[in-house]
Amino acid sequence: MSQFVLSERLAADTRFVADWPLSRVLLMNDARYPWLILVPRHAGATELFDLSPEERSQLVEETSRAGALLKARTGAAKINVGALGNLVPQLHVHVVARNPGDAAWPGPVWGQGQAVPRSPAEQDALLAELGLR
Amino acid sequence: MSQFVLSERLAADTRFVADWPLSRVLLMNDARYPWLILVPRHAGATELFDLSPEERSQLVEETSRAGALLKARTGAAKINVGALGNLVPQLHVHVVARNPGDAAWPGPVWGQGQAVPRSPAEQDALLAELGLR
Repeated sequence: MSQFVLSERLAADTRFVADWPLSRVLLMNDARYPWLILVPRHAGATELFDLSPEERSQLVEETSRAGALLKARTGAAKINVGALGNLVPQLHVHVVARNPGDAAWPGPVWGQGQAVPRSPAEQDALLAELGLR
Repeated sequence: MSQFVLSERLAADTRFVADWPLSRVLLMNDARYPWLILVPRHAGATELFDLSPEERSQLVEETSRAGALLKARTGAAKINVGALGNLVPQLHVHVVARNPGDAAWPGPVWGQGQAVPRSPAEQDALLAELGLR
């Protein structure tokens, strides 16, 4: 199996947070939403069915963990989970904290408007709030 | 635990396909995309973390199965998976076959334009193509 390499597009849009057992955890650099991305470190995977059943179980556990901490720490009304990959084929799962009145509510966050960058200090503050640093 | 009841909104937008071990499988009535929805029969669940780990594993297996058959039977370029719930809080997972040039490509399907209904005969034909009837 070839080596896992994070897509350049994902790397450009995010900050590294942690490596969980299966997934690289990234913070999307968009101040409009608390938004994590999980990237299974399985080289070449683009779809859920490219993973083994054990990897899928681990991925859904990590997705659930990310969603639960976003909900608990930010008080979000709803967690949105999505694996699209139309622009970035490398398998990745978005986990986004949503609230009525946010920039895309009640629609999806993808492809809506322009990201609003966070300063490094703001990224630090959010990650601390999430218990991820 | 109270009894599972499918949300009226999901029922209105879809056709019943099957009950898999965890999820009710629905066909979205939108001819723009081959589009299945999985609804775990767990009363009151709105988020992944409302399920047990065993239910989450089953859900991701059923999501993967739905995606694999959409890919294999329709030749889709990409499968999109999403659990949003901003409008319909009952936990449900969209599994959508996507192709360059489709009505929303490369954006997400949710909240884009109006659904194009399929006739019952067209629904039958798609379900037969998918091996689901």
